[in-house]
Amino acid sequence: MTQSPTFETTFYVRYAETDQMGVVHHAAYVVWFEEGRSAWMRSLGSNYADFEAEGLNLAVSEVHARYVAPALYGRQVTVRTRGDEIRSRSAKICYEVVDTESGRTLVTGYTRHICVDREGQVVRIPDRWRKLLAASKAPEADS
Amino acid sequence: MTQSPTFETTFYVRYAETDQMGVVHHAAYVVWFEEGRSAWMRSLGSNYADFEAEGLNLAVSEVHARYVAPALYGRQVTVRTRGDEIRSRSAKICYEVVDTESGRTLVTGYTRHICVDREGQVVRIPDRWRKLLAASKAPEADS
Amino acid sequence: MTQSPTFETTFYVRYAETDQMGVVHHAAYVVWFEEGRSAWMRSLGSNYADFEAEGLNLAVSEVHARYVAPALYGRQVTVRTRGDEIRSRSAKICYEVVDTESGRTLVTGYTRHICVDREGQVVRIPDRWRKLLAASKAPEADS
Amino acid sequence: MTQSPTFETTFYVRYAETDQMGVVHHAAYVVWFEEGRSAWMRSLGSNYADFEAEGLNLAVSEVHARYVAPALYGRQVTVRTRGDEIRSRSAKICYEVVDTESGRTLVTGYTRHICVDREGQVVRIPDRWRKLLAASKAPEADS
Repeated sequence: MTQSPTFETTFYVRYAETDQMGVVHHAAYVVWFEEGRSAWMRSLGSNYADFEAEGLNLAVSEVHARYVAPALYGRQVTVRTRGDEIRSRSAKICYEVVDTESGRTLVTGYTRHICVDREGQVVRIPDRWRKLLAASKAPEADS
Repeated sequence: MTQSPTFETTFYVRYAETDQMGVVHHAAYVVWFEEGRSAWMRSLGSNYADFEAEGLNLAVSEVHARYVAPALYGRQVTVRTRGDEIRSRSAKICYEVVDTESGRTLVTGYTRHICVDREGQVVRIPDRWRKLLAASKAPEADS
Repeated sequence: MTQSPTFETTFYVRYAETDQMGVVHHAAYVVWFEEGRSAWMRSLGSNYADFEAEGLNLAVSEVHARYVAPALYGRQVTVRTRGDEIRSRSAKICYEVVDTESGRTLVTGYTRHICVDREGQVVRIPDRWRKLLAASKAPEADS
Repeated sequence: MTQSPTFETTFYVRYAETDQMGVVHHAAYVVWFEEGRSAWMRSLGSNYADFEAEGLNLAVSEVHARYVAPALYGRQVTVRTRGDEIRSRSAKICYEVVDTESGRTLVTGYTRHICVDREGQVVRIPDRWRKLLAASKAPEADS
C-alpha cells in the first residue's frame, strides 16, 4: 500500500467565513477545497487559469464534505489536496482540512469533475493536464 | 411507497453567485440548501433563529451535492426541501434545486445534522422540534 | 422638492450572511445592493442578464455603505433602490436597507457604474436602457 | 509630508471570487480589506480574535471602495493596509489593492470602525489596542 503524495496549502481563516455559530460556515470549506485545487495546480508548474484559457473547464459534478471539528477565526488551516481517479474525461480529487498548529482534522471531502469545452460538451482532459494531475498521485503498486 | 411532502422556496439567482465560467458557483448551492432549510422551518410556523435562541444548533455534519445542470443569472430557481431520517439526535435533509420555469433539475443533494448545545455537546433534538421536522415527512408505511 | 420613486425588494436574511459577531457581515449588504439593482431592472420589464447579452456591463466603479444598525438572521429585509444621476456613460444608484417589519434603517449606500463593452472600453449606455433607468427617477423640476 | 507606513499581505485570487464578467466580484474586495486588517493586527503581534475575546468588536460603520482595474483569477494580489484617524472610540483604516506582479492599483478604499461591547454600546478602544493601531501610523508632525 502506497500513500498518495498530497499537496498542502496554508492560510488564515477569514472573518467573513465565520457565521453566528462562532465557527467557519460549512460552505466556506467548499471554497477552500477549490483553493486547494488551485494551489495544487500552481505547484505543478501550471495554473487553472491557463486551463480555462485553452477553452476548457474542470466542471464540478459532485461535492462531498464531512465535518469533524469546526475551524475558527484567528487560526491557520492547511488544505491537503490529492488527485484520485484521474481518468480520460473525469477526475476525483480528495481533501483534508486540518488546523495547522494542532494538526487536528477539521473536514474531509472530495470533488468529482468532468472536463467540458466552451459549449458545455464533455471532452477528454488534454494529455498534458491529465499527466500533470496524475503525477501527483502515487504510482500504482507495480509489484 | 409514499412520496414525502416537500417544501418549496423560490428566488432569483444573484449576480454575485456566478463565477467566470458564466454559471452559478458550486458552493452557492450549499447556501441555497441552507436557505431551503430556513424557509422550510419558517413554513412550519417556526424559525431556526428561535431554535438557536434556545441555545441549540443543528450543526452540519455532512454535505453532498450532485451537479446536473448549471443555474444561470437572470433565472429563478426553486429549492425543494424534504426531511428524511429525523432521529433523536440527528437529521438528514434532502434537496432538489430546479430551474423554476422549465422545471429542469439542476442540483440534488442532502445535508446531515447533529443537535449540539452551546458547549458543542451532542444533545437530543427537543421533541417539539423533532415533531415539527418529522411532520413534513411522509408517514412511515403502517402496513 | 420631489422624492424619487424607489423600487423595493424584500427577502429573508440568509444564515450564511451572518458572522461571528452574530449579525450580518458588512460585505453582504454590497451583494444586497446588487440584488436591489437586479430586482429593480426586472421590475422595469427588463433584466440585467439581457443587458449583458448585448455585450455590455454596468461595471461598478465605486461603492459606499454606511452601517446604521445590524441586520439579523430570522428577519426580513427590504432593499429600496433608486436611480440617481443617470448619465450617458455612467450612473449612480442609491440604496436603503431596512428591517421590513420595523421599518428601521439598517444601511444606506450607493454604487457608481460605468458602461463598458466586452473589451472593457467605456461606451454610452444604450438609449433604451438609459431611459428605463431614468424612468424610475423623479422628473427634474421643470420650473 | 510623511508617508504612513503600510502593512502588506499577499494572496492568490480565489476562483469563487470571480463573477460572470470574468473578473473578481466587487464585494470580494470588501472581504480583502477585512483580511488586510486581520493580517495587519497579526503583524502587530496581536490578533483580532483576541480583541473579540475581550468582549469588544471593531464594528464597521462605513465602507468605501473605488474600483480602478479588475483583479483576475490566477493572479496574486497585495492588500496594503494603513491605520488612519485612530481615535478613542473610532478608527479609519485605508487600503490599496494592487496586482502583486505588475504593481498596478486595482482598488482603493477605507473602512471606518467604532468600538462596541457585547451589548452593542460604543466604548473606548482599550489603550493597548489604540497604541498598537496608532503605532503603524506615521507620527503626527510635531512642529
